Amino acid sequence: MGSKLNLAELIKEYESYKALGLKLDMSRGKPAPEQLGLSDDVLGALKTSADCFASDGTDCRNYGGLNGISEARRLFAQMLEVPEECVIIGGNSSLNMMFDTALRAYTHGVKKGAKPWSKYDKVTFLCPAPGYDRHFAITEYLGINMIAIPMTDEGPDMDVVESYVKNDETVKGFWCVPRYSNPTGITYSDRVVKRLAALKPKADDFRVFWDDAYAVHTLEDKRTKLLNVLEEAKKHGNEDLFYVFTSTSKITFAGAGIAALACSPNNVAAVLDSLKWQTIGYDKLNQLRHAKVFPNMEAIETHMKKHAALIRPKFEAVLKAFSEKLTGLAEVEWTKPTGGYFISLDVPTGCAKRVVMMAKEAGVTLTPAGATYPYGKDPVDRNIRIAPTYPSLAELEKALDVLCCCVKIVVAEKQ
Amino acid sequence: MGSKLNLAELIKEYESYKALGLKLDMSRGKPAPEQLGLSDDVLGALKTSADCFASDGTDCRNYGGLNGISEARRLFAQMLEVPEECVIIGGNSSLNMMFDTALRAYTHGVKKGAKPWSKYDKVTFLCPAPGYDRHFAITEYLGINMIAIPMTDEGPDMDVVESYVKNDETVKGFWCVPRYSNPTGITYSDRVVKRLAALKPKADDFRVFWDDAYAVHTLEDKRTKLLNVLEEAKKHGNEDLFYVFTSTSKITFAGAGIAALACSPNNVAAVLDSLKWQTIGYDKLNQLRHAKVFPNMEAIETHMKKHAALIRPKFEAVLKAFSEKLTGLAEVEWTKPTGGYFISLDVPTGCAKRVVMMAKEAGVTLTPAGATYPYGKDPVDRNIRIAPTYPSLAELEKALDVLCCCVKIVVAEKQ
Repeated sequence: MGSKLNLAELIKEYESYKALGLKLDMSRGKPAPEQLGLSDDVLGALKTSADCFASDGTDCRNYGGLNGISEARRLFAQMLEVPEECVIIGGNSSLNMMFDTALRAYTHGVKKGAKPWSKYDKVTFLCPAPGYDRHFAITEYLGINMIAIPMTDEGPDMDVVESYVKNDETVKGFWCVPRYSNPTGITYSDRVVKRLAALKPKADDFRVFWDDAYAVHTLEDKRTKLLNVLEEAKKHGNEDLFYVFTSTSKITFAGAGIAALACSPNNVAAVLDSLKWQTIGYDKLNQLRHAKVFPNMEAIETHMKKHAALIRPKFEAVLKAFSEKLTGLAEVEWTKPTGGYFISLDVPTGCAKRVVMMAKEAGVTLTPAGATYPYGKDPVDRNIRIAPTYPSLAELEKALDVLCCCVKIVVAEKQ
Repeated sequence: MGSKLNLAELIKEYESYKALGLKLDMSRGKPAPEQLGLSDDVLGALKTSADCFASDGTDCRNYGGLNGISEARRLFAQMLEVPEECVIIGGNSSLNMMFDTALRAYTHGVKKGAKPWSKYDKVTFLCPAPGYDRHFAITEYLGINMIAIPMTDEGPDMDVVESYVKNDETVKGFWCVPRYSNPTGITYSDRVVKRLAALKPKADDFRVFWDDAYAVHTLEDKRTKLLNVLEEAKKHGNEDLFYVFTSTSKITFAGAGIAALACSPNNVAAVLDSLKWQTIGYDKLNQLRHAKVFPNMEAIETHMKKHAALIRPKFEAVLKAFSEKLTGLAEVEWTKPTGGYFISLDVPTGCAKRVVMMAKEAGVTLTPAGATYPYGKDPVDRNIRIAPTYPSLAELEKALDVLCCCVKIVVAEKQ
């Protein structure tokens, strides 16, 4: 492995890309226009007033319905394998639901009578890293201390997690993307979920923010099985420790889907008791649009196969380019996800920022290096998140040429 | 005036209503189904992918657009008579935008570097009363001290307001419904708006929450003119003191409209700087639906005339019933709004709770007595908010028979 790279030739290649004046964006996990085009049925689901009534007779045009309409809750209940009464439907953004959930804990505590997190001298969140930058942004906004937890290929390093959670009473939260993780694409193993479900936190107001954003976003025939964390937690009396989030953002419309929170009956009651001060209810018409088009999990699965057909070639293009061009390079590794929206690329120590900058100068925008770590700081400056879904296949292939060339340059420079 | 009431006969009449087993609800300011039916065009405004692009090319199906699409901002800019750049579009609820705005001040202060309200020993809001219960609920949720400010027929008593704002540094906020006020229906006079705009607060982080919920909700030919508070405030260097809110909740769909916040350029920057941690953006498809159906203020005005035609007979029915049945009764008064959603009824001191309870026992649900005051406590127990829009005219007339009978009973008991 590792026949010597020719730096001069690579720089020549890089300069030729620069001369093309490219403008390619692989920075965010956005669906491509063709994916959004799969959901025209949702747009047209409600045509006249007569279409606007939920199955229980609720007029979805009017006020009310704090926890969402029954058929929308039922859909997410199937998706997350939880009882319908454990689901609360939100607005168009599960991120906003996570923000609100963290804010509630911050201003009022995790339940009636609990001390607000804002009243503690220090609150700490464990942040599996590489992870999702917008999660870390919420905790940073609230001045919450963040500790990066190493990721393995079956989830966060549970020895480290258990040690912090058991011994450090400032540890009150934990961000997780358990299925097709952002950005590594791995799914937490049964072993990891069981250990998480059995945690014995020192803090009595510890909560896991379980962001199952990619619950149904498989590139294969069937989605990867994720152990049901609420059921597992219940076995240990820990069901109140988990907030499960998901949305249809990458099923229907990234900006106009519906979001959901699933949690224990205690937590549902606590959330609604706060939520009632905040709003009279979220957009039930959009809930009804979704519920009409997706009456059950089968409809979702059929629909997700169409997404997979559009996305799979893009993931394959990335893996093919990496395999052909980066195999055998020292300290260069990548993940091979079977679902989700990202591929995680590790480049040689100290080189991620440089690769992202070089790619940028050649017209290819990547997620900023460091973004996958708390405070935007990758301690070894190795990780780059690859978001292949938004560009066309042709644009993606061009962007990969540039990216691979940049990676080879930094490797060559280290030889 | 004041021919003696016959209590025995009134009680007989009341018992006859009870025997009817009525179930009528006048508790909330909800639009009636026929009003919601005026907006079928909004439902059908987007049929296919091709319809989903904003005028600047933004794909409204995808992520992004933190401040909303331009055509939606332009619509609210016309409605509120402010520049487009001063408008931020929210989700389906202006109440939620007010909640979020109060929360931002609570957790992070009103601008960069400002002390969070949560870090003060005491924060006070002035609450014109009778006023809107859900405003008071937000401040109550945050543990903010509330002081009731007497309402006159041209707005809050400005001598009292000025005195508090000028001398009490704990006074950091002020709830207002300046046009067709909830529940009295009055509109703040130019004199009041000018005095508000010129306030010299002792606290340097004082803010007015200016809820122009009924901005276009006139029962007459033209809406009542409200002086532009942002323009007036600017004359005194006070433009950062005002957050202006409104929504289409009672223009299109109560549960699925769009909300907006208008404020100074400084405040727009501060709000977006916080909002970016909370969400990637609100539902732009719903913004686009609204903007397509209402390209300008004329379209809104034409539409609101249809609402007025449905609502006016209900307001007239209330005023007719009160005029015929309650005129001349001691300590019984009511307002005669030319817009908005409510009529405010004052019954004899100490009798509002009793009237509401008696009506309830006869099958007529009113807004709980006291709800129009901070902490739900009307110090003289006189005020009842009448919400005539939701019931049918026939139901409303029946409910008014019951209500007027109850009022006459409490008056008779005092004779």
